[in-house]
Amino acid sequence: MYSFTNDYSETAHPRVLQALAEAGLEQNCGYGLDRHCQEAAELIRSLCGAPTADVHFAVGGTQANLLVIHGALRSFEAVIAASTAHVNVHETGAIEATGHKVCAVPTPDGKLTPALVEQVLSAHHSEHMVAPRLVYISDTTELGTIYTKAELTALRRCCDEHGLYLFLDGARLGCALTAPGNDLTLPDVAALTDAFYIGGTKNGALFGEAIVLMNDDLKPCFRWYIKQRGAMLAKGFLLGIQFRELLRDGLYFDLARHANEMAARLRQGILDHGYPMPVDSPTNQLFPVVPNDVVRRLEELGYGFEVDHPVDADHTCIRFVTSWATPESAVEELLRDLPKV
Amino acid sequence: MYSFTNDYSETAHPRVLQALAEAGLEQNCGYGLDRHCQEAAELIRSLCGAPTADVHFAVGGTQANLLVIHGALRSFEAVIAASTAHVNVHETGAIEATGHKVCAVPTPDGKLTPALVEQVLSAHHSEHMVAPRLVYISDTTELGTIYTKAELTALRRCCDEHGLYLFLDGARLGCALTAPGNDLTLPDVAALTDAFYIGGTKNGALFGEAIVLMNDDLKPCFRWYIKQRGAMLAKGFLLGIQFRELLRDGLYFDLARHANEMAARLRQGILDHGYPMPVDSPTNQLFPVVPNDVVRRLEELGYGFEVDHPVDADHTCIRFVTSWATPESAVEELLRDLPKV
Amino acid sequence: MYSFTNDYSETAHPRVLQALAEAGLEQNCGYGLDRHCQEAAELIRSLCGAPTADVHFAVGGTQANLLVIHGALRSFEAVIAASTAHVNVHETGAIEATGHKVCAVPTPDGKLTPALVEQVLSAHHSEHMVAPRLVYISDTTELGTIYTKAELTALRRCCDEHGLYLFLDGARLGCALTAPGNDLTLPDVAALTDAFYIGGTKNGALFGEAIVLMNDDLKPCFRWYIKQRGAMLAKGFLLGIQFRELLRDGLYFDLARHANEMAARLRQGILDHGYPMPVDSPTNQLFPVVPNDVVRRLEELGYGFEVDHPVDADHTCIRFVTSWATPESAVEELLRDLPKV
Amino acid sequence: MYSFTNDYSETAHPRVLQALAEAGLEQNCGYGLDRHCQEAAELIRSLCGAPTADVHFAVGGTQANLLVIHGALRSFEAVIAASTAHVNVHETGAIEATGHKVCAVPTPDGKLTPALVEQVLSAHHSEHMVAPRLVYISDTTELGTIYTKAELTALRRCCDEHGLYLFLDGARLGCALTAPGNDLTLPDVAALTDAFYIGGTKNGALFGEAIVLMNDDLKPCFRWYIKQRGAMLAKGFLLGIQFRELLRDGLYFDLARHANEMAARLRQGILDHGYPMPVDSPTNQLFPVVPNDVVRRLEELGYGFEVDHPVDADHTCIRFVTSWATPESAVEELLRDLPKV
Repeated sequence: MYSFTNDYSETAHPRVLQALAEAGLEQNCGYGLDRHCQEAAELIRSLCGAPTADVHFAVGGTQANLLVIHGALRSFEAVIAASTAHVNVHETGAIEATGHKVCAVPTPDGKLTPALVEQVLSAHHSEHMVAPRLVYISDTTELGTIYTKAELTALRRCCDEHGLYLFLDGARLGCALTAPGNDLTLPDVAALTDAFYIGGTKNGALFGEAIVLMNDDLKPCFRWYIKQRGAMLAKGFLLGIQFRELLRDGLYFDLARHANEMAARLRQGILDHGYPMPVDSPTNQLFPVVPNDVVRRLEELGYGFEVDHPVDADHTCIRFVTSWATPESAVEELLRDLPKV
Repeated sequence: MYSFTNDYSETAHPRVLQALAEAGLEQNCGYGLDRHCQEAAELIRSLCGAPTADVHFAVGGTQANLLVIHGALRSFEAVIAASTAHVNVHETGAIEATGHKVCAVPTPDGKLTPALVEQVLSAHHSEHMVAPRLVYISDTTELGTIYTKAELTALRRCCDEHGLYLFLDGARLGCALTAPGNDLTLPDVAALTDAFYIGGTKNGALFGEAIVLMNDDLKPCFRWYIKQRGAMLAKGFLLGIQFRELLRDGLYFDLARHANEMAARLRQGILDHGYPMPVDSPTNQLFPVVPNDVVRRLEELGYGFEVDHPVDADHTCIRFVTSWATPESAVEELLRDLPKV
Repeated sequence: MYSFTNDYSETAHPRVLQALAEAGLEQNCGYGLDRHCQEAAELIRSLCGAPTADVHFAVGGTQANLLVIHGALRSFEAVIAASTAHVNVHETGAIEATGHKVCAVPTPDGKLTPALVEQVLSAHHSEHMVAPRLVYISDTTELGTIYTKAELTALRRCCDEHGLYLFLDGARLGCALTAPGNDLTLPDVAALTDAFYIGGTKNGALFGEAIVLMNDDLKPCFRWYIKQRGAMLAKGFLLGIQFRELLRDGLYFDLARHANEMAARLRQGILDHGYPMPVDSPTNQLFPVVPNDVVRRLEELGYGFEVDHPVDADHTCIRFVTSWATPESAVEELLRDLPKV
Repeated sequence: MYSFTNDYSETAHPRVLQALAEAGLEQNCGYGLDRHCQEAAELIRSLCGAPTADVHFAVGGTQANLLVIHGALRSFEAVIAASTAHVNVHETGAIEATGHKVCAVPTPDGKLTPALVEQVLSAHHSEHMVAPRLVYISDTTELGTIYTKAELTALRRCCDEHGLYLFLDGARLGCALTAPGNDLTLPDVAALTDAFYIGGTKNGALFGEAIVLMNDDLKPCFRWYIKQRGAMLAKGFLLGIQFRELLRDGLYFDLARHANEMAARLRQGILDHGYPMPVDSPTNQLFPVVPNDVVRRLEELGYGFEVDHPVDADHTCIRFVTSWATPESAVEELLRDLPKV
């Protein structure tokens, strides 16, 4: 049975594998200083309309997060994040392990707003407290929701007003930018944040996240942080090859669009079956609430999915994730197997 | 012209690429909990004669080093290492970034001995000093030298006597175990150390190091450290697939043997040309001392190699590295182009 | 005008100053290994009914907290604390600076309960999250409330059940143990926690907190942590002298009782004046809610106190702290100057 | 018998104790924001001829070192220090615990020179290595030697040339500035360093080091670092009172001069007795080499002193320290009891 557990269950899109195979025994210099990385970085700068951006490649998202955040902050400075944020919940304290507090704030939908940011700021006003200095958001969020251009612009203004960095975790940026209702572009994201990354792991690459540093303050010596944290891939060219292939002709966005389309089909089916989805996600993560016996039934049938949290004694919120690799037939089969309310 | 700069200039051995391609769209669970990683781990336990070892896969060597060392130590405990050790020189203070001092001791050949270890211990005797607790060695060393079974056994005995962990960085373990003069086996390494790793990055993998934890004290919660340090690959199965392919029929050692043979041919040629090699390496790194104009000549011809350090005003120690991918023709060409003394 | 800002506004109780003066030019060995510290430690063990406890002296509370917590935890392990906890709010991320996350949980009264602890535990169940391992409580809490013996016993049971350490911040332990309604004794605190400290700074000492380690797992090498964190006072004997003087005949508890009595008088007066105190504190910190013009009036008169937080547009929660040094006349004067509702 | 073990064996100079006693029940605000600290800081700025310096008070030397160094460095940046430096040897890895490597360089006399600094720099040239960024020196050094104005000026020039901070550990600055042969003044030290501290603990205070920040880059948010590291004394005014008393009329330097004079008398006596002192210290630490039976004899007599290191099978280098409190009679008695060669 198909697994809807996550969007990184398969090796990579065939074109990515092919591009790697073509490099074969070609010799490249190490540590991301090769021509593939340079070309991929140039392509990213071009797609972002950001000719002076610095681009670095990391292997995974936790790495990308801790590199940017730790690199941006002095040791007493802290992160403002939604309490559902990946850096707050699902990274085993990776940010704290670099010395920084995450000031988590509850949200209804995984999205920060200027009001929530200012709520944190108002509680931190002296040297007896950490100094919040960086706002971490993710697009898509951990709940599958997305930011509009107006929302991101408002956060940018709030950050400017208070001297905060704005960092966007783009592990699923492809799905965000191709979602129905999205009005953000890659140049918008670049213009409105101090740093962000374009996620490859969850969108067709073997692995890899492309970190884009927009704010000049964050650029100096970033490679020292990468190496110090064990995040400098010896064969860095593997990252350059993959991102160039994904981005050179829009494959990256085609793959994300497919994941969203499969999710849209699944969402409609689930709603038609009569299950509620309290958080309305337009992207590739869906969080329906189903009776516990439905959970058991799907498990017995062999479907892969995550149990997110118990809702009450009889109901559970589960998570389905679609991806670039999800065949429409798998969605249809799941919908056939899913009991109706 | 061929690059002798390092042993990680090419993507991966064709069989590794093929194994990855075969996995294609097969779905696997994430984070190294898949069957490929289980099979690779089982294979490693078997090859090591260590049925109770814990095996974890990391993407790179700096990661592997900091995971094992930080995981083993309390915050005031320190590492004893040769001053040439990778963790002391070439990891941008990665160990210190996790809070631990590296007590570096000069050596003639990159190898620690019980006497050198005890020299460090004798200088640390109270709570005003760090407490040395882990001996870090590498085989091959950063100078290409190797440990004999007698030497490793003596270190083990020294560590036992003083309550120290013995950790072996095996980034180039393949070359060590297939070198002329080597009398260590994989089961010996497993039996004589508390932890070590089998390096894939420098021996035919796209990337990857297989960490083997022998001492039960080091095993609990190791996956928490992996995740916390951003070292848990989402598609962990990529590591399992590669190591299984490299180890299932001896390919790993064949590749290392080839690298050593190419180095042996190059070494003999360099000596025949009349250049000294003060450190006598039986493995795939060679450190000849040549006149500065020879350095310039080779650079003009487009050869890749590293300048290690200036020896005097007129001479430079350079480094040539051969690999599993080095063709014999490249060695012969270099020797033809290398001026004689 | 008198300052009710905190309980560490004066040098020290005259008997403490006298004891220090008497030591004068007497020579003592450094770093807390002297006879004064030994005698004070012995006295503490005796008062706690804990002959095998380890006792260490720190200069201040943030130090004591980070020493115990960091010493107890592996790097991926986390603290469970009330969201009002000193370690969560008022130590500038000192715990995070040692690498550990503080999992903060909202409470009505600053006190943790087994249910709140288990709420945090239930959200942490894999290597993708930190591992909560130590419960931090304070008695008195940051809101002036205290734990009963039944409550502390319940927490102990909860910690035992889940393999958690229980650490009690006793910066104001004197006031807790002498409060009306308290039924805990020093031996109770020792028996029910894994570690705690007896606060001197806020109860008549120049400075100093006596850390009592009950759990054998926390004892080894604690002095290494002290030194590494810059917390080992060269003239450690200053701490031994003070604690012996405070504890040898009950002065410590007499001072705390006085602080509580002054607070009780002030509390009754404030209530009589008609101001609410939403958190009912039986100890030396009071949190009345007053109109903003009363705040301004008291400031104009020169009284010292803290503004805790705005309650609404017209009202503010302020904090008054009494101490061992507060004269009854100061309380009476404040009550005379405080307008009635 | 008298202890020559260190210069912090007694409480404090009577005038310091008296000044503290006078403050008695006077109320002061906390955390070093009181008038005593302001007056002491103003006095220090005046004595240093540095009206724009920032002055902060720490309780001890390890604290002062880690605050300044960690505050000055990004996480991949490192310290250059003599291998005998206190931060390298005697602080239990306190600097590494804040994440930074100490690049230690052997010296004959505990003093760094531009050549030694540049030797370290030349070995660090890429993102694979730490970036040395701060030169740590101590005056007096850990061997009792001192810097001349020419030497300190040369280091300043070297640091300027290479973009390095120069930080001077002045735990024994009093003895340095009053030593025979010294030509440095407090304004010189202030003008030639980026930061330094004036040690109180070893020169008549109960405790305390006055940190002077000269370079504007090091000033912002320093109080956040102090609090985060548990180094902000609640009753900060205790530090201000002590430093004002020590510095207001030269008492600080009188005390240091006395320590040096007692050492000079002892040095001459030791040399007259025929014992060598390989390192020639003009200050209050002496390192004679004596036969092992002399060590035993002095121990039997009850003298306090430190065994520094064994020189050969029969000889030991020991350390005598004099202080502001050492009576001349104690020196004479020691010399009477010390056997002649």
